[in-house]
Parts: sequence; C-alpha cells; structure tokens
Amino acid sequence: MKTTGDAKILLAHGGGGQLSDELIRQRIWPKFKDGLTELTDSAKLELTSKSICFTTDSYVVKPLFFSGGDIGKLAVCGTVNDLAVAGSRPVALSLSLIIEEGFEFELLEKILSSISKAARQNNVAIVTGDTKIVEAGAADGIFINTCGIGVRLAGVDLGFDKIKAGDSVIVSGTIGDHGMTILSQREGIKFQSQLKSDCAGVAELTCRLLEDVKGVKFMRDPTRGGLASTLNEISKTTGLSIEINETDIPVNKTVQAAADMLGFDVLTIANEGKFVAIVPAGSADDCLGICREHPLGKKASIIGEVTETTDVPVVEIKTRIGGRRIVQMPYGRELPRIC
Amino acid sequence: MKTTGDAKILLAHGGGGQLSDELIRQRIWPKFKDGLTELTDSAKLELTSKSICFTTDSYVVKPLFFSGGDIGKLAVCGTVNDLAVAGSRPVALSLSLIIEEGFEFELLEKILSSISKAARQNNVAIVTGDTKIVEAGAADGIFINTCGIGVRLAGVDLGFDKIKAGDSVIVSGTIGDHGMTILSQREGIKFQSQLKSDCAGVAELTCRLLEDVKGVKFMRDPTRGGLASTLNEISKTTGLSIEINETDIPVNKTVQAAADMLGFDVLTIANEGKFVAIVPAGSADDCLGICREHPLGKKASIIGEVTETTDVPVVEIKTRIGGRRIVQMPYGRELPRIC
Repeated sequence: MKTTGDAKILLAHGGGGQLSDELIRQRIWPKFKDGLTELTDSAKLELTSKSICFTTDSYVVKPLFFSGGDIGKLAVCGTVNDLAVAGSRPVALSLSLIIEEGFEFELLEKILSSISKAARQNNVAIVTGDTKIVEAGAADGIFINTCGIGVRLAGVDLGFDKIKAGDSVIVSGTIGDHGMTILSQREGIKFQSQLKSDCAGVAELTCRLLEDVKGVKFMRDPTRGGLASTLNEISKTTGLSIEINETDIPVNKTVQAAADMLGFDVLTIANEGKFVAIVPAGSADDCLGICREHPLGKKASIIGEVTETTDVPVVEIKTRIGGRRIVQMPYGRELPRIC
Repeated sequence: MKTTGDAKILLAHGGGGQLSDELIRQRIWPKFKDGLTELTDSAKLELTSKSICFTTDSYVVKPLFFSGGDIGKLAVCGTVNDLAVAGSRPVALSLSLIIEEGFEFELLEKILSSISKAARQNNVAIVTGDTKIVEAGAADGIFINTCGIGVRLAGVDLGFDKIKAGDSVIVSGTIGDHGMTILSQREGIKFQSQLKSDCAGVAELTCRLLEDVKGVKFMRDPTRGGLASTLNEISKTTGLSIEINETDIPVNKTVQAAADMLGFDVLTIANEGKFVAIVPAGSADDCLGICREHPLGKKASIIGEVTETTDVPVVEIKTRIGGRRIVQMPYGRELPRIC
C-alpha cells in the first residue's frame, strides 16, 4: 500500500478522513494488533474482577528520547506504576497521541515501537487509542496520554488511613536517576553518558510483594517532586511525621555528583521505576527480601519510619554527618517536563 | 487559603511540588469532589459488571469556547458518546490536562466548571486526573484528554459483523452543526450567531434505545469526517454498500447555508451530539419513535439502507433533484482541530 506524505505528519492526518485512516491502519494499528482487535472507538473488555483501579497520565517529557528510555516507554511504565502502587495488576492501557504537524514519521515509528515493547514487557495490552494532529507551533513534537485499568489484588487494601506511627518506610532502589538523566541531557553536561533513567514498570514486583507479605499499608511511585514530595504528601495527609536516614537512601554516585554540580537536592528529583512502601515494622525485612530478589528491587532499602507528630507533621532527615534537617515539599519550579 | 500566582498558570504549577499541590487542591479538586474522593494516583472503582467498554480521546478544539459549548463540555460529551455508541452505560471518566504556561486561571476555572456540569448532566463521575504544564509556546492554551469506562448493557452486542443488506440507517438528528459552528467562528462570518454546536452526551438516549429495541446492530458517533466518514467506514469494513436519500437527511438551514457559502459538503462536517444507528428494517420505526421522544433525538430520521454490493462497496446518495452520486471518504484536510 502506498502511503501519502511519507516523511512527515500532515495536519490532514488528523482530519478523520482518508489520511487519518491511513495513519491509523498502516502505522499505528500494526504495532498493537494484539490488543486492538477492532478499529472502533471503544474497546470491549472482559475483566476478571469488578474491583478495578483506573488512572490517567499525560506525558510531555523533553527531550523525547533519553538514556534509558523515551516518551513512549515512559507513557507505558508511568501508568503501569500508578496502577501497581494502588494495589492492582495492570491489564489494559489506552493510548492517545497529540502530534505536531511536521513531526517525523521515523520518530513516531520509534516511539510506537517502544510503546509496543514496553506494553509486552509489562503484560498490558493497548486496547484503545486516539490521534490528534495540531498545526506546527501548537504543540512540541508529541504529547502522549495513557490511561490504565488494573484489576485490584484480592485482600489488598492500601490507603493513607492504614499508616501508623512505627511503620517502616521502604524505597525500592536508587533515587533521582530519571530526573538527573533528563536534566543532564538537556544541559548537555559531560557525565550524561553515565546517567541512565530508571524508567521501568514495577507492577510485577509490587504484585509479588502484595501477594507474599500481608499488611503492606501504602505505596506510591515518587515521580515529579521525588521522594521529598511523596513523603511530604504522606505526612500532610496522615498528620504523622516521617524520619529518614540519609545514609540508608540509595543514590547512584553519578546521580549524586550531577545533583551536587547542578545544585539540586536529590530527594526532590523524579524517579520513574521506583516505589515507596509503608509497611508494618515487623514485615519490613520480609518486604526487603522480596524486593532484593527482583531485578528492579536489588537496591531496595529501609530508609526510615513513620513517627508521632509532636508539633506539626514534618519529614525530617538525619544527615550523613549526624545533623537533622526538615525535608520540605519542593516548590515545583525545579524540573518542568520531566515526565 | 492564599493562592500563589493568582492570574496565570506558571510552569511551577506542573512541577509536582507545592504549587502543583495548590493547583490541584484549591482549583481542580473542589470541582470534582464527588468522584475524586482521595488524591491518589489511581481511582478505585467497584463496577456493576466485568464487561466494560474503555475509550480515550484527546481534545484540541480551537477556539476553546464556541457557541453551544467549550473544550471542557466537549471532552466529557465526546467520551461519553464513544462509550454510548459501543453499547455501554458510561460510569467513570478520567481527566488529564496539558496546560500552556501563562494560561489564565479564569479560563481554566470556566473550563473546569463546564466539565463538572457536563459530567453531572451525563451521570458520570470524574474519578482520576493528571495535570501537566508546558512552557509558553509548547502547547496552544489547553489540551484535554478524557478516558472513559462504561458498563456494557446486558444482551447488547453491537458490531460491524452484525450488519446485513436491507438494514436501515438512522441518524439521530441534524448533521454538521458542530463543525460549521467552529468553522464559522474561526472565520468570523456573519451568521455565526445563529449557529450552535450540537455538543451533547447521547448515552441516555442510546441506552434507552438499546434496552427497548432488540436487534440494534451498530452505532457510531459521526465526529471528525462527519456522516460521510462514518458511512464509508461501515461500507469498507462490511464490504456492503449504503444508499442514502438527501431529502431524508436532517440539516439545519443555517448550517446548510454556511456550508454552501464556505464550500463544504455538510456530509463531511463533524457532529458532537449525534449518532448513526444501523438497525433491522423491521425495527426502524420503533427506533425512530424512541429517538423522537428524547430531546436529543427529535429530528431523528431514517436516511437510507444497507445494500448488496455489485462491484465495489460504495456509499451512494440520491440527491434532492433525483440524481445519484458517490459519497467519498473525505481526504481529511477540511477541518483541523474540530474536536
């Protein structure tokens, strides 16, 4: 079949006519034929349970391709992770593209292949989609939205309300890898070749954890705003305080060096393949064991605990040299378009 | 509570820190508190069935506000309609915003109120969301993605494969209203005040139709590409032909005048509150009766029938003056950013 407009996306590819049909049938559909069995506007799904999790995320990361991933892989893994930390097994994703006129088909092809591969790796099917084209200058290359449906794990009920003083705080691996990779790549700084985003889907590991250890209370993936944001949100919502130990927080050396050089606190830097879990102190070692057996949890660590609040709820860190400081909710201007 | 940055969206509102938290807690959450009971990344839902429909759409319409609606109302109704025509009852939507730095809070407020109102009117809850901010120039104001989950109606099984020669083709009302409204507004032409988008959610009507009349075979909302695109897709996929009668196709006079003046074929113009239904000839009058009792189906009409294909499958129209012509799949360049 001949395809009109071989090199670049045209506005007409979004018009709902012949060219849209070509774009979808020839370039997009073939990547996702397993899940997208029919080109109707809605997917029909038979779930294994009526209890589900449902989530959405739009991805606007810049640059589109980075060490360790690209916007496509991120769009799958990020949404998989949101379902995973909610205590569900991800089953189906939607895929919605907003593409700028003039975007190269070659790049689109790479991104779609990456989405397809990440979906397979994470055992989720892309079951429904949408493509919109906007004129040159009205978007920045490509934005991707994925929504996800996960089937809730039986007997698992995570929530802020389960968290109590004395609970342990676990992080599943090194922090800051994604954010420092993106940032270094944008700044074009030297050690970028040694940095690599942690972009990965953690559902296999979280499902194993939740199935094998009873009583896990809460999980969250520390993306935008990093560990600092996640812990502050837990503290703010529960009214409890959190104390963490700097020496127990796993950080790759290059990430730490990049953060120091660029003046960032690694606690505020985004992650895309990690989770924070709040677990009863008595189960913390079991959880750690399960994490460390999994490729994505080898560097998991118990980084601190939930404590009673004396004055106002705070997140406090015991520093490497024995001091203490408050870990504040980051203001938000650090890293635009990190995911 | 004091809000930082009162008039306009800042990049930092998307950073995942304090300002993101403010934006979400103070401006977005209050509009959707019914469905968004907890600010976690995934919604937990208890469905009434394991058989669901799942759909996604990104909305990039320009201008953001138009006669009869705005991007917010459109983002709810469009996704509701995709679920409706798939034979399901819409229950939950996600809401994902991509906002350009500098976008006015006042406009955001209007759009969110509109989303909230449309969700209530259509009996769906906004249950999960996401907000991304991109720098000025990297998007055009605001783009909205909604995904939807609908519970499939028992005993209803719609599909291209059910369609047979002899079936009737029904359209639920006048065509071209949405597209011509947007286009006229963009062009600033005179009669725009008399044009009004048909933007509406048709799920109440489609559910009634599917529950009261057995044997409805297929439904589709003729959005981008209009009736021409929908009928051609049916013809192409089934291998059957379709014959429609121009005199039976309901078109508002002002829409027809606008289309004639601007040189558009009204058959190719987008609709946002209409559906096409393929029904057995024997049930067509019953279907019409049900449609006409509903405010959104008052001008419903049987516009033609599915026929055997003699040579290649075609959509043919018998014109007002007794001629015949082929209705082609539109090429797609007519109307960018119509939805």
